Amino acid sequence: MAKGITTREEDYSRWYLDVIAAAKLADNAPVKGCMVIRPNGYAIWERMQAELDRMFKESGHVNAYFPLLIPESFLKKEAEHVAGFAPECAVVTHGGGKKLEEPLVVRPTSETIVWFMYHDWIQSYRDLPLLINQWANVVRWEMRTRLFLRTMEFLWQEGHTAHATYEEAEEETLLILGIYKKFAEEFMAMPVLTGLKTDKERFAGALRTYCIEAMMQDRRALQAGTSHNLGQNFAKAFDVTFQTETGAREHVWATSWGVSTRLVGGLIMTHSDDSGLVLPPKLAPLQVVIVPIWKSVDEKSAILNRLDEVTKGWKNKFRFKIDDRDNYRPGWKFNEWEKQGVPIRLEIGPKDMENSEFVLVRRDTGEKERVPQEGIAERLAAMLDTMQNHLFQRALDLREQNSHIVDDYDELKQRLEEDGGFYRVHWNGKRESEDRLQEETKATIRVIESDQPAEKGKCILTGEASERRVVVAKGY
Amino acid sequence: MAKGITTREEDYSRWYLDVIAAAKLADNAPVKGCMVIRPNGYAIWERMQAELDRMFKESGHVNAYFPLLIPESFLKKEAEHVAGFAPECAVVTHGGGKKLEEPLVVRPTSETIVWFMYHDWIQSYRDLPLLINQWANVVRWEMRTRLFLRTMEFLWQEGHTAHATYEEAEEETLLILGIYKKFAEEFMAMPVLTGLKTDKERFAGALRTYCIEAMMQDRRALQAGTSHNLGQNFAKAFDVTFQTETGAREHVWATSWGVSTRLVGGLIMTHSDDSGLVLPPKLAPLQVVIVPIWKSVDEKSAILNRLDEVTKGWKNKFRFKIDDRDNYRPGWKFNEWEKQGVPIRLEIGPKDMENSEFVLVRRDTGEKERVPQEGIAERLAAMLDTMQNHLFQRALDLREQNSHIVDDYDELKQRLEEDGGFYRVHWNGKRESEDRLQEETKATIRVIESDQPAEKGKCILTGEASERRVVVAKGY
Repeated sequence: MAKGITTREEDYSRWYLDVIAAAKLADNAPVKGCMVIRPNGYAIWERMQAELDRMFKESGHVNAYFPLLIPESFLKKEAEHVAGFAPECAVVTHGGGKKLEEPLVVRPTSETIVWFMYHDWIQSYRDLPLLINQWANVVRWEMRTRLFLRTMEFLWQEGHTAHATYEEAEEETLLILGIYKKFAEEFMAMPVLTGLKTDKERFAGALRTYCIEAMMQDRRALQAGTSHNLGQNFAKAFDVTFQTETGAREHVWATSWGVSTRLVGGLIMTHSDDSGLVLPPKLAPLQVVIVPIWKSVDEKSAILNRLDEVTKGWKNKFRFKIDDRDNYRPGWKFNEWEKQGVPIRLEIGPKDMENSEFVLVRRDTGEKERVPQEGIAERLAAMLDTMQNHLFQRALDLREQNSHIVDDYDELKQRLEEDGGFYRVHWNGKRESEDRLQEETKATIRVIESDQPAEKGKCILTGEASERRVVVAKGY
Repeated sequence: MAKGITTREEDYSRWYLDVIAAAKLADNAPVKGCMVIRPNGYAIWERMQAELDRMFKESGHVNAYFPLLIPESFLKKEAEHVAGFAPECAVVTHGGGKKLEEPLVVRPTSETIVWFMYHDWIQSYRDLPLLINQWANVVRWEMRTRLFLRTMEFLWQEGHTAHATYEEAEEETLLILGIYKKFAEEFMAMPVLTGLKTDKERFAGALRTYCIEAMMQDRRALQAGTSHNLGQNFAKAFDVTFQTETGAREHVWATSWGVSTRLVGGLIMTHSDDSGLVLPPKLAPLQVVIVPIWKSVDEKSAILNRLDEVTKGWKNKFRFKIDDRDNYRPGWKFNEWEKQGVPIRLEIGPKDMENSEFVLVRRDTGEKERVPQEGIAERLAAMLDTMQNHLFQRALDLREQNSHIVDDYDELKQRLEEDGGFYRVHWNGKRESEDRLQEETKATIRVIESDQPAEKGKCILTGEASERRVVVAKGY
């Protein structure tokens, strides 16, 4: 275990914060609950943004920007929405030295302002579908915050689309859910369950909310992204109608969907270890760090010359860096890059020069091997691939080992308490059972999986008829 | 002139807003002074961001994210800074349904929160230089707003760097000024003057402010970017010191610098014409639009097949689109893409199919030519280059034709009133003359040019000794 990092076994929450501090990913801001994302953390978010943005654009979405400040009255136009968000709002009451006539809320999410504008932008079926995304900051007044996972201000993307039919809106909602799953699994190497939230857990103002749910190393669930079919709720609240091809006027169908800097928290919790951050190669800002080891100035310049030759053409292959700083020792550098989660360390000293070799060290397994300098680029590419797959498989194994089918409520309570994990249980679909479950176990229904077959059974709480199992876990 | 667009001659301000509306770049938001950046406008900003971000990173800068909400007391720690910004602040007084103990301001700029954090991040000379940028939204309570040029909330980048010496900070300030100039001239095709702001016009809290200033088509000046040497002002206000190599403790030296979505306004005003938006190819989200013209379904499919062949491999060369929509006529499409400022329109109809030709239309000159299909990619690439250069040269010519040397105050007043433009005049360097100039002419000293030789003369207002000329103009 590394200096300054509590082990996971000792204190998982503390470990998480220690990993963040050691890798310089984020700091607490002076305003309680707010966060400063430091360059190392922001570089991860930038890579996430780049991949997601590419996927959104490839599926026909465009970016726009809606204002931060929303008239308080807007929120009230959709009854469920205001009930859900008003208590969490930061409110601007003064501007330019004067009290405002109407207070403005700092956006907690942008449905209301977006649909206010869509009233003007959408007239005809020709204007549909409208597939808009924005990258923005939002503020929700949270009391219990934790860096990345839950902060008062966070960065996210929020998609807001408008469609001519219910079916199209549902299709869009699922298309985005698929993009989120693909991103989580292929880039974050974080396996996720997908499906519906219960009515209790759905977005305030939505018909239904789909989500991706991941298991962290402490066997708790993390909701990592949501995609909402909003029906015509916001179109009705803001009177957004369109002329159909046959000349009728109808309300527009809507979706909204988002992932946030919370993903960075999920990434950290999924892969990191007691030595610090571990990053999957596809999202690592730096994939390979080269640490030359020298005793004399001549050795140093010989090694750097060799590295110049060897790394020619690497710019388009890897994100790499040669750490040739004079004022730090190799051992200090090893430790530093380990804490920062760089996937591969490549060492080269005078003896390696003689033998035309490198020493490679993999961050995830700690494996060290001596390899010939020839063919090193191919070897690194292969190793990065292997590591990406290994991290996914390791996380998947953890989840599978800790996912259980249970039919006895006492057993469920005990195992949730003792082992954590995901439990597939029967539920009668009623809110009161759901409330009782949460009260008695501190766990919640995380997701009603889309890809699991229906299975008749008896509700684990009441014995009443149930149509399918749902996934119960303690969550973040 | 295009339908719905006022001519520049008739009403320049109205023309500007009409161009924005016709190209669907932005809308007024419900909160007065705020703006919604529509997809067409945001795509331009995204291209600006991509190029600037690349230049910042190539010169060693990294991105981070500091919080939106700043304790009101922070602003007060630097005397000039609070005097400059406090009157413009939006203030959050309530959060989570409760009145806050200390009000929070929505950041108007981030020096205070950044330097609060730098207190912890900077200990030693090894931590320097610290070269951080952030892409963010800021809010300044403006009364007279205009889309893109001056809005209550705007998007920008703000760099905040920390250095061991005054000289290094000054070097950084000028490095960034150079990047801004290069970006404005090479990408925006917008020539700029560079140099110092007067003390009156410098950033609140800075030692000195450098700027880039451009001339718009109405011959007014637009401040398009600023780079500040902050000296040790913020380091002292937030007690940020570092241990030098020799073991002494010293206050850190600082810079900050920014450009904003105002650049989009500058871009529009520099190149657009009475038919709507004109975009320089390097920043145009769409560089080539292809409009196929058909009468029958067979003709359509033959043309689209040919286009498939011809455009193979274009993806890595141009940003292009084939507008094969059935529900719009070619004439409507021509007009639409013209208003949106797409640099080149490529038309192809049945007759062009027979002759293996295309019709090319350049947006900036309106020139139309019939060209062979063979070698079209090379021809387009060359035309985009030509157009980029032509737009720059045209803007430069306008500026040069409207830049004058004047030594008589009455002449200055009259010409500012009648012709607008830039005037290089002698000034005694005193604030009271500067104030009087502004009061009497509504013009301001825009810039003390860095690259103009010193020249002894007499102040145009007072006849007192002057060391150099300064540039006077009416501004935005």
